[in-house]
Amino acid sequence: MEILSKYNTLLNQNLEQAVSQNEPAQLYDPIKYILSLGGKRIRPALTLMVCDFFGKDYKEALSAAMAVELFHNFSLIHDDIMDNAPLRRGKATVHEKWDVNTGILSGDAMLILAYRFFENYNPKTFQDLAKLFSETALQVCEGQQHDMDFETRDDVSLEEYINMIDHKTAVLVGAAMKMGAIVADASKSDMDKIYQFGRNLGIAFQLQDDYLDVFGNPETFGKQVGGDIIANKKTFLYLIAIEQSSKGQADELEHLYSINPKDPADKITTVKGIFVNSGAAKATQVEIEKYSNFAYSMLDEINISDEKREMLRQFGNSLMERNV
Amino acid sequence: MEILSKYNTLLNQNLEQAVSQNEPAQLYDPIKYILSLGGKRIRPALTLMVCDFFGKDYKEALSAAMAVELFHNFSLIHDDIMDNAPLRRGKATVHEKWDVNTGILSGDAMLILAYRFFENYNPKTFQDLAKLFSETALQVCEGQQHDMDFETRDDVSLEEYINMIDHKTAVLVGAAMKMGAIVADASKSDMDKIYQFGRNLGIAFQLQDDYLDVFGNPETFGKQVGGDIIANKKTFLYLIAIEQSSKGQADELEHLYSINPKDPADKITTVKGIFVNSGAAKATQVEIEKYSNFAYSMLDEINISDEKREMLRQFGNSLMERNV
Repeated sequence: MEILSKYNTLLNQNLEQAVSQNEPAQLYDPIKYILSLGGKRIRPALTLMVCDFFGKDYKEALSAAMAVELFHNFSLIHDDIMDNAPLRRGKATVHEKWDVNTGILSGDAMLILAYRFFENYNPKTFQDLAKLFSETALQVCEGQQHDMDFETRDDVSLEEYINMIDHKTAVLVGAAMKMGAIVADASKSDMDKIYQFGRNLGIAFQLQDDYLDVFGNPETFGKQVGGDIIANKKTFLYLIAIEQSSKGQADELEHLYSINPKDPADKITTVKGIFVNSGAAKATQVEIEKYSNFAYSMLDEINISDEKREMLRQFGNSLMERNV
Repeated sequence: MEILSKYNTLLNQNLEQAVSQNEPAQLYDPIKYILSLGGKRIRPALTLMVCDFFGKDYKEALSAAMAVELFHNFSLIHDDIMDNAPLRRGKATVHEKWDVNTGILSGDAMLILAYRFFENYNPKTFQDLAKLFSETALQVCEGQQHDMDFETRDDVSLEEYINMIDHKTAVLVGAAMKMGAIVADASKSDMDKIYQFGRNLGIAFQLQDDYLDVFGNPETFGKQVGGDIIANKKTFLYLIAIEQSSKGQADELEHLYSINPKDPADKITTVKGIFVNSGAAKATQVEIEKYSNFAYSMLDEINISDEKREMLRQFGNSLMERNV
């Protein structure tokens, strides 16, 4: 993302050397490996950008940004084990390239290493950052657990689903931004608002990701369009479709989400039709707008220059406009 | 242990409610389960005792002690997965009672919860405790990795072995004690010395555990005597026996550590004989004494009353005299 490029440059210069330890190799090589796989580094770039926008040299937020990126990658290593995923960013996952035990232990070490990056700050900042980090990390674990629980439940409410994506992905976006504000010593009110901006934008983004998985442009959407339907994944679209459909249509949808046809083309077309006819597609768009509007309303209240506010809005827009 | 009983009372009153979260149950139930299995709680009791001995109300060290015990139990959950262990304290391990994914994620949450206990301290103490905790936790991961690496290596040196048990178990004993000193605001010098006392006692204890696994009294030693020999575990006794034996005897020992006879009685007897004849048993005792003597020499230099020093020495003695 253009607006994040100068922050990404600093991150890329430093992430490769983020872990100085070499020995035991079996512990530290997997950490270096997953960091080398790249990724958009949006979360840590947000930490730097927010620090910058609140008037402090963004290099001072580098350690906090590193902690955010290490935590994110720790969660990828452990989630990939739990999801039995063979690939991450097109390369073998850690537990595939090594083994499950290596993935568990390297992930543990990576979580601890993330905390160590806060040691570069004074005690007060250290405590503020580490408290936010722990609270967020625990919410991410809770979100992951709910996500796994939902796979075997058929009574998940819309509220529970929003709460799951909030914890699993959105809180870390909010926390990444707030960490930049903490390093920049922003006011308590601005810290809370930038957090709400990031967190609600994160929810909107995740809902849109669910939406685009069904209605996105196959040429620009990063993943296989229809992938969630093929996997019978009960996303927001499905849950709201069940809620808003007639009994007959809901039964049909439930049936479709219990089968795994060899050629899923017909199933995808039928499900898409139900999502549109039931009003679920529209309702999801309304929900996305609700969360992004709330995010922008928070942004309006932050005490920064209009120029910086506009740049944060632009970031939000470019995040939400991607791959439509 | 008699000397720790008043600290254990406080711990037992609080550990059951250490985790207030209930939801998602699949995440928090395993944490409550492993804490309910008991254990001697020696590490957290040491945190309380050292705080007490350095002149501060030991209740003030309760949060640090909780962090130590939560960390220890986190490492048990993840180690049990890696070791494929069915039982822990005579009950089903977390991954057996639930599943591996639950063990991974609950363990992660438990590590994060451990950090959160430090939030009850002021920023300076928080930072001192969390830094020591992170450094120690990373060493524990390194020790566990080395332990796993050693299973498939046949060129492990005595120094590497000592380094492994130091990291895997001894540093946490030292850190548990030092945390009590940090909370009590002891001098830098006393902090370092109580840490060295605990750490070296921890090494001596672990070496003695290896020794008693072969030469202990079956009626008082907690585990199966000969268990390490049956499992072909290359402990200090084995490594030093290989080093000190004639070529013929070393070859025999290597052979014995490559077989798994149905009835291991003869194998145990032969290995025991080699351990004695080669001087390995004696050399191990010398090594145990070296580390415990160094621990006590540190204790002598700590600036506390002779009465407290004597109690710490008594603790060391009762730790080392157990189950002989």
